[in-house]
Amino acid sequence: MPGVTSLTYLQFQATYNILSFALAAMIFTALYLLVSQGRVLPRYRNALVVSATVCGIAAYHYWRIFDSFSDAYVASAGSPDDPASWVYNLEVGVGFNEGYRYVDWLLTVPLLLVETIAVLALGRVAQKALLTRLIPASALMIILGYPGEISTDMTTRLVWGTLSTIPFIYILYVLFVELSKSLARQPKDVRATVGRLRLLLLATWGVYPISYLFPVFGLEDGNSFMWRQIGYSIADVLAKCLYGLVIYKIARLKSFADSSAFAKEEGMN
Amino acid sequence: MPGVTSLTYLQFQATYNILSFALAAMIFTALYLLVSQGRVLPRYRNALVVSATVCGIAAYHYWRIFDSFSDAYVASAGSPDDPASWVYNLEVGVGFNEGYRYVDWLLTVPLLLVETIAVLALGRVAQKALLTRLIPASALMIILGYPGEISTDMTTRLVWGTLSTIPFIYILYVLFVELSKSLARQPKDVRATVGRLRLLLLATWGVYPISYLFPVFGLEDGNSFMWRQIGYSIADVLAKCLYGLVIYKIARLKSFADSSAFAKEEGMN
Repeated sequence: MPGVTSLTYLQFQATYNILSFALAAMIFTALYLLVSQGRVLPRYRNALVVSATVCGIAAYHYWRIFDSFSDAYVASAGSPDDPASWVYNLEVGVGFNEGYRYVDWLLTVPLLLVETIAVLALGRVAQKALLTRLIPASALMIILGYPGEISTDMTTRLVWGTLSTIPFIYILYVLFVELSKSLARQPKDVRATVGRLRLLLLATWGVYPISYLFPVFGLEDGNSFMWRQIGYSIADVLAKCLYGLVIYKIARLKSFADSSAFAKEEGMN
Repeated sequence: MPGVTSLTYLQFQATYNILSFALAAMIFTALYLLVSQGRVLPRYRNALVVSATVCGIAAYHYWRIFDSFSDAYVASAGSPDDPASWVYNLEVGVGFNEGYRYVDWLLTVPLLLVETIAVLALGRVAQKALLTRLIPASALMIILGYPGEISTDMTTRLVWGTLSTIPFIYILYVLFVELSKSLARQPKDVRATVGRLRLLLLATWGVYPISYLFPVFGLEDGNSFMWRQIGYSIADVLAKCLYGLVIYKIARLKSFADSSAFAKEEGMN
């Protein structure tokens, strides 16, 4: 679907601003994580670089989404001093491209799982065993969601949404059951932070299916369009920027635990 | 050929999104490989820099291809809320420039072979012997393909396509026969990964002639245009991004094998 056919001034402004907010958050989290590599030991730097890559890819897509949104809707005539009279109509042949979100998720969601595992520095065998389960499952989850997203038929939307939930549950199983076995060897501080990281992942990833189901509940007007964009944008900022910063915190804690000389140099002992 | 004369909404969207996907993949793989240089020993860094250069050159060309595509097709009138009624027509005098792909390949394909040889750190004589065969052969392969790509005559297309296959087969001969002699001295892990790298090269490079032959099979409508773009884009992402990441993995494995102190610092012992 190319988007709803018309938006009010408020709906247009709110969507415009939340997209710009998400774009700024992504760009500067990516830069922050890149320049902070020296703050962790070399073995944790890949986790930071992957986190920065995730935010960078999302920044690129928010740039495109923002441009697509502001090109797609054009204000019709109204009174210049009365924004309430302005109506933003979807341009024929331009359309708002929701597809960018799926392209973004297809690239970033597997990488979010890579950074989660990378920061634990589990050793090659354990790491490979987890990633060969998580990466295909996460790609499958996104791919199965897409046919439902572009469909205007609600049954189709529900069927693909349900199919997409199966790999999601499998991912949760791997993170909450399989991963726990590997956590026993981690320092106590780190165990607690990793536990919070998993909950953050669960809470933010849970926003996506809610936004996805808006049209099923019959919410396909300007307001639900706006709330879906707000929902997806906030979920993306939490799942990518905040998540990346928590990964950074874990990498710091583990660096201090691994090397007291490094902790001292960083003034953290 | 400047592209087909008209596309449906679905054909336009699918092509648009796959080009954006390839662009994002190229940019961020290039950046990832650049910032990950500290993760391998200095002797393998040139392979990473060359891999990043390949993805960077491809990112530049995908940017141009994406802009060329979205400028070339303009939607005719239709109903705003019914994308199925939108038709995207080729603008006279603009045209979709397929030539970017050939310029890209002319630069990146020889470099892909350079990174393949560089990561093996074979020693100067063996390296030079392989590169003086592979680089001219790969440039010849691209140059011989181009007259066929721009021709509307199917016999011309077939003749140049066949000529282009000769240096391709010579490249495979060098990689699978000549290179094997140099692999005997490599660590076991690395031998297996290099073996998979060659198969990846063979599998992804095999997509290009298939896309090239679409018009010969009489497939020159909107659907075959879309599938050719999808085919070329996915092949490019696999042949450049995935290939570069496998090169990075080989460089990591070889760094650990060369220096146990480095492996320890990276938490990989």
